[in-house]
Amino acid sequence: MTETEPVGFIGLGIMGRSMALHLLEGGHSLVVYNRTRQKALPLLDRGATWASSPADVAARCAVVFTIVGFPHDVEEVYLGPNGLISNARSGMLFVDMTTSSPALAVRIAEAAAVRGAVSLDAPVSGGDKGAREGTLSIMVGGDPTAFNRVLPLMRLMGKNIVHQGPAGSGQSCKLCNQIVIAGTMIGVCEALAFARRSGLNLDRMLQSIGSGAAASWTLQNLAPRILAQNFGPGFYVKHFIKDLRLAMEWAKQKGLDLPGLRTVLARYEALASRPGGENLGTHGLYLLYDSSPFLPPSH
Amino acid sequence: MTETEPVGFIGLGIMGRSMALHLLEGGHSLVVYNRTRQKALPLLDRGATWASSPADVAARCAVVFTIVGFPHDVEEVYLGPNGLISNARSGMLFVDMTTSSPALAVRIAEAAAVRGAVSLDAPVSGGDKGAREGTLSIMVGGDPTAFNRVLPLMRLMGKNIVHQGPAGSGQSCKLCNQIVIAGTMIGVCEALAFARRSGLNLDRMLQSIGSGAAASWTLQNLAPRILAQNFGPGFYVKHFIKDLRLAMEWAKQKGLDLPGLRTVLARYEALASRPGGENLGTHGLYLLYDSSPFLPPSH
Repeated sequence: MTETEPVGFIGLGIMGRSMALHLLEGGHSLVVYNRTRQKALPLLDRGATWASSPADVAARCAVVFTIVGFPHDVEEVYLGPNGLISNARSGMLFVDMTTSSPALAVRIAEAAAVRGAVSLDAPVSGGDKGAREGTLSIMVGGDPTAFNRVLPLMRLMGKNIVHQGPAGSGQSCKLCNQIVIAGTMIGVCEALAFARRSGLNLDRMLQSIGSGAAASWTLQNLAPRILAQNFGPGFYVKHFIKDLRLAMEWAKQKGLDLPGLRTVLARYEALASRPGGENLGTHGLYLLYDSSPFLPPSH
Repeated sequence: MTETEPVGFIGLGIMGRSMALHLLEGGHSLVVYNRTRQKALPLLDRGATWASSPADVAARCAVVFTIVGFPHDVEEVYLGPNGLISNARSGMLFVDMTTSSPALAVRIAEAAAVRGAVSLDAPVSGGDKGAREGTLSIMVGGDPTAFNRVLPLMRLMGKNIVHQGPAGSGQSCKLCNQIVIAGTMIGVCEALAFARRSGLNLDRMLQSIGSGAAASWTLQNLAPRILAQNFGPGFYVKHFIKDLRLAMEWAKQKGLDLPGLRTVLARYEALASRPGGENLGTHGLYLLYDSSPFLPPSH
């Protein structure tokens, strides 16, 4: 595509607004839509054009990115009465960057194909920081030709961009990422609780275990936040529960039993049932294990 | 201590023989004992002296290191009729580097104190590679003066040497290390199984998730071994089960419920009940999830 063709962007939350800004800064004209118009204002100030609905975005753009909240939001944006697919023209290209269901990604790709369009699933990891800095990891499922066509735009938003396979593969890969994080997180939280209950000094404990076989991004980045009693997101418990449920459902459909994932999900659901729990950062899982996190360690 | 005083070393398995060799190479004369004498031969060839029992080691040395298999071995070496404690003299210093029970470490430290001796618990992490290269992490519990006295010897064996607190603290810290690894490992294994069942190419999946928030030593070092269908140790399933059981018992004594750890331990026990299971490397956990690990991924 040339830089004069406008690019569509739907979903201007914390992630989407940073990602859309990189497209603008890359010299592309942008047509944006978001359920809450106010979140679009910083982009409109920088020259983006407002669209009144997903259908309106589809009418004005040949390439549309989406990153919304939950699978039912994806379903509405794509398959709803005022959605992208029923307004798709031949040759159009859709890229859903929401973490969503692999099965839904396949369904949308099939619906797009019926109209001569293509839909890719391309969820990301790297969080708000990766979105701001344009260093996201992007995991892409779907038609390889379409992937190559949209790659220059993705390179404005991410660094580690990998075509994973057919439609749904990007979502499956992202769920793998979340399954790994789930296990790592419960290990880190239970170890910290064990350390406190054993009377260890947590800083010294981390000094011993932080650089060997127990090392992980979670241990390095989130354990210090737990020690600092800073349980804000980061990544919300409510969104992580969504991802882990998607993984459980997909595994179940595939006949795969994942007792580790099931255990972690149950713990997060217990956390979310507490007042304020679902709006904690994922490392808030620690609070299930330590009823007095605001007491200093015993020595 | 001067370099002319002989140092005792009991337990010459894969870890112990490398660690003892560093003491020899550091210029110390060494008195060694091992249940199987043959394992001592390479050290005897290099000038170490054979002792006929732990009591014999105690009779000849003022400082004794031990690294044996299981807590009952530690108990026998220290508290048995021909053991170190009943032959201890005032001023002697014992250092148990076995991964063992925090409660047993306290018991041995108390028994040593009765005879005017000191016992430290100082388990290690870093595996056979860390032992060979002298880069172990050493987590030390017990008397700080004794810790400082023995630190020059420990520096021949390890790099990251941290005094964790009173007797038992070294063991508690090592168990924290194992709890983190347990969670991380089940996350990695379940994600790989999920990826295969989803038809992903596992190399590409790892390329997407290996450097972000899912990153860990386990993912980086053991996932490639799983992909290469190399399930040998590394670290034995049977030893990891020992460690996880110690952690479960200690947590239970402290009134701490650790459902993540309990889930992982149950999975490892299921693995160990299979023929050959307990002699796999810890990443053999993957085999519980994938009945056909020797088939190539689907694309």
